[in-house]
Amino acid sequence: MDLLLTYDVDTTTAAGRRRLRKVAKLCEGHGLRVQYSVFEIVADEKDLLHLIDALDDIIDTSKDSIRIYRLPKDGFAQIHTLGTARPHPHREDLVL
Amino acid sequence: MDLLLTYDVDTTTAAGRRRLRKVAKLCEGHGLRVQYSVFEIVADEKDLLHLIDALDDIIDTSKDSIRIYRLPKDGFAQIHTLGTARPHPHREDLVL
Repeated sequence: MDLLLTYDVDTTTAAGRRRLRKVAKLCEGHGLRVQYSVFEIVADEKDLLHLIDALDDIIDTSKDSIRIYRLPKDGFAQIHTLGTARPHPHREDLVL
Repeated sequence: MDLLLTYDVDTTTAAGRRRLRKVAKLCEGHGLRVQYSVFEIVADEKDLLHLIDALDDIIDTSKDSIRIYRLPKDGFAQIHTLGTARPHPHREDLVL
């Protein structure tokens, strides 16, 4: 399934920036970083449970906020973008 | 329809913070600010076109990124949250 993960963290502190780096590294293993703290993720239910566990270990649950939205089928192909935002291919055919 | 709008803007500058404030004010007219730069929006196609026009006038298209995702029906009710994130009611019945 296609998911969108948004991470609200205070990056004015070194600890906050460190947590964002860790969350980014984790999320990039499952998808793409499309904004500073927004990640498009492709995962099945099992992957998602593992991801949630790992996120829970990284974030400061008293300060940070993570929201994970389920997108409709082909949700990544139906994004309206403005400014520097660009669509990112997730399932582009491999051309050799 | 249910939409999710994410805004990537450099808030280390006063101009960036000003643009975020303007985008927030605009988006809050159509929905809820659920994170610092993430907005849950309920809009029909006509509202969305007006919103996109207004956003285009506010943002710096050479620096900022806005992504607008369409969520499935009841998408706001199916969010997984971690940390301080909380579900927000959009269509709660009015209790008198």
